[in-house]
Amino acid sequence: MNFKGKDIISLRDFKKEEIEYILQKASEVKEGRHSNSLKGKVLASLFFEPSTRTRLSFEAAMTLLGGNFFGIADPQSSSTQKGETLKDTIKTISGYCDVIAIRHPFEGAARASADVTEIPIINAGDGSNQHPTQTLLDLYTIKEQFGSLDGLNIGLLGDLKYGRTVHSLSMALSFYNVKLFMISPELLKMPIHYAQYLENKGIKYTETQNIFDVGQDLDILYVTRIQRERFGDLQEYEKVAGSYKINLEVLDKLNKKIKIMHPLPRVDEIDDSVDKTDNAIYFEQAHNGIPVRQAILGLVTGAIQ
Amino acid sequence: MNFKGKDIISLRDFKKEEIEYILQKASEVKEGRHSNSLKGKVLASLFFEPSTRTRLSFEAAMTLLGGNFFGIADPQSSSTQKGETLKDTIKTISGYCDVIAIRHPFEGAARASADVTEIPIINAGDGSNQHPTQTLLDLYTIKEQFGSLDGLNIGLLGDLKYGRTVHSLSMALSFYNVKLFMISPELLKMPIHYAQYLENKGIKYTETQNIFDVGQDLDILYVTRIQRERFGDLQEYEKVAGSYKINLEVLDKLNKKIKIMHPLPRVDEIDDSVDKTDNAIYFEQAHNGIPVRQAILGLVTGAIQ
Amino acid sequence: MNFKGKDIISLRDFKKEEIEYILQKASEVKEGRHSNSLKGKVLASLFFEPSTRTRLSFEAAMTLLGGNFFGIADPQSSSTQKGETLKDTIKTISGYCDVIAIRHPFEGAARASADVTEIPIINAGDGSNQHPTQTLLDLYTIKEQFGSLDGLNIGLLGDLKYGRTVHSLSMALSFYNVKLFMISPELLKMPIHYAQYLENKGIKYTETQNIFDVGQDLDILYVTRIQRERFGDLQEYEKVAGSYKINLEVLDKLNKKIKIMHPLPRVDEIDDSVDKTDNAIYFEQAHNGIPVRQAILGLVTGAIQ
Repeated sequence: MNFKGKDIISLRDFKKEEIEYILQKASEVKEGRHSNSLKGKVLASLFFEPSTRTRLSFEAAMTLLGGNFFGIADPQSSSTQKGETLKDTIKTISGYCDVIAIRHPFEGAARASADVTEIPIINAGDGSNQHPTQTLLDLYTIKEQFGSLDGLNIGLLGDLKYGRTVHSLSMALSFYNVKLFMISPELLKMPIHYAQYLENKGIKYTETQNIFDVGQDLDILYVTRIQRERFGDLQEYEKVAGSYKINLEVLDKLNKKIKIMHPLPRVDEIDDSVDKTDNAIYFEQAHNGIPVRQAILGLVTGAIQ
Repeated sequence: MNFKGKDIISLRDFKKEEIEYILQKASEVKEGRHSNSLKGKVLASLFFEPSTRTRLSFEAAMTLLGGNFFGIADPQSSSTQKGETLKDTIKTISGYCDVIAIRHPFEGAARASADVTEIPIINAGDGSNQHPTQTLLDLYTIKEQFGSLDGLNIGLLGDLKYGRTVHSLSMALSFYNVKLFMISPELLKMPIHYAQYLENKGIKYTETQNIFDVGQDLDILYVTRIQRERFGDLQEYEKVAGSYKINLEVLDKLNKKIKIMHPLPRVDEIDDSVDKTDNAIYFEQAHNGIPVRQAILGLVTGAIQ
Repeated sequence: MNFKGKDIISLRDFKKEEIEYILQKASEVKEGRHSNSLKGKVLASLFFEPSTRTRLSFEAAMTLLGGNFFGIADPQSSSTQKGETLKDTIKTISGYCDVIAIRHPFEGAARASADVTEIPIINAGDGSNQHPTQTLLDLYTIKEQFGSLDGLNIGLLGDLKYGRTVHSLSMALSFYNVKLFMISPELLKMPIHYAQYLENKGIKYTETQNIFDVGQDLDILYVTRIQRERFGDLQEYEKVAGSYKINLEVLDKLNKKIKIMHPLPRVDEIDDSVDKTDNAIYFEQAHNGIPVRQAILGLVTGAIQ
């Protein structure tokens, strides 16, 4: 399978075999194979929107495999201020590097960037649209924990209406034989077109407002934040927010072997006390950003085959 | 020719042979010679004013030849806020690196920096004064396209009064046997002392407000932006701005083999549709920032001879 | 002595032998031993507060010994904005690197960070609390100049009440056989608990408001800034500020062989004209930040033993 020069814009562009191939390479990288394979490669890390985790994870991924990076950490310090179009910026910078990772507040910015250059573009999040490397590290983490993605019961909790992460993850999971459990307040249910997409793919899913309805059946609970701003009525928010907060008491009522995931950053939707339990795998999940992004950087630059 | 330890502050400090030497080294670098020659060298990339293109180009130049960099991308995050003088900052940082590239809003800042350290200083733009690496990459691009700088008819279009780039370029071109065509609105004509400088050097030049007066004679058209803010009268601006906008229709009336250059970023003074033509070389020009800056970094650190 | 994995939070955590060991390693690094020893090591350089000198010095230290870094230069561009706790940030980033240097506005932030990760944490300044690598480079500079720390008369001048640097330095000096001379306005005397600490350690010290009382006896004068903001009464400030400003005239009345130190940045408490004298060693002091931080980075990552 040849990924050299390929863009990573949206998981919708990928076949199951391609996803599997990336996960396999990530696994090899994590085992210590491919060390120093990015030596001589240079990443342009273009973050037109603040980010810590994703930016540092791309930059660390590069340096830890012997590569280098330069970039924009802060849109304020870039000459897009001078009115230059994103396309011109990308055309110029593509002459400076081997691969570009871009985060941008506008939907479609990564695809538009890919259209104007031969250099591989990795979408590091374009507005509320796609963040494919997050989904790949989510899949990787699940596979690492359970050996396989098939046969699992996976709960998605929180803001399923606006949450980019859960949309993308559920679509990727539709390649596998999983059961999904959508746990959210009525107001923040998964949009109907995602639900339909899953049905068309033959994925069984259950919707509920109450985590305890399904908590004993879950292998995985993927928690996301409910943002205050989504609610006009703050009282409504307070009621809901509390009921979706995972603490030791809630955990005690779920499947004893359940694994708790979260894309991070969290605010208070998972209590600190949960961190120490065997159920919590969200920091391992975050750390898996490194081998997964290393595999991707290696594949698209041709450094890893 | 020994450039080790030399500062690159203004092209006025250079003899023709020195410019030629830098261009020749840039050419060697672009051919793939000198690879990894900056290994072990460290650049301090000090941008006290926002910039994308120039900063990233210096940093990329360094990493692509095996070197490293650290620096200031955002003046807000520096302790010049604490009232430290630029001289003290430079004295301190010169103990941390092999070469410094500095952009600063104040004219003369690069020269003042060079005065307090033995480390080579590269001026990456000091206010409206000098930006020598831009001029060198302009010269390099012309030479790359035409084989030689001699015998060419070169048009400079746009804001010739305030444009740092065209001042510096025209002075550098005065080393060569060229004819210059100054195309600008009356209000934005090249200042008299530059014009006199060129005359003293025996450079023939023509002034006109209308690009079509000279467009058939030009080998190169170097376009620059006309900033709205230069005009008190916006109606005046609108009239002029339009007439200096290069699109396919305008291009059709110029010499068929003309090459269009631009220091970038552009706003709307060259239409996107021009990008695809053989005439457009402004992105190649921008990409030439890499080998030219690599040659300079290599020469002043002694890594390239 | 094994420093691998050790945190560098406060000099209070260190025994004299440990300090001596770090200084010895710094000396080896400065002599050119241990070159390239940080190859393959990655530093996360997390500056949640603006800084030039310290940040660049850590990053330069890393690259000059063959290592790499990534990080946060500007708290504005980090997702701590999204409400993530520092502990979560550190837990995540500790999966990306070999060592973390952190500067943070809150006292205790470095210690709190060290509590949540196995990765070594280096405190690069936590509010008005500790800045141990500054103190180590101060000690290193004194030792380099005088061969030994013992037997010296050391004057500390300026704001001894609020100055983090002088508190930390005087405590570290208490390991050695030195005499201290506290020179400050009445209002900015060293706090009584530091004074008592020194007495308990058997360190002799003298307090005075007038530098000329003791200036002939000093081997070293360590100058710090008096911040205007410390005074309610600006007239009071003006009077005092002037009398603590070192210029050639003042210098002339001090011990001819005195060495002038300063943690930098300075504003006007040392006149520029002093820079050229043999007495001024503050830029050497700043440059010593490199070998000292290299030694520390090497020791805690296990790259230097």
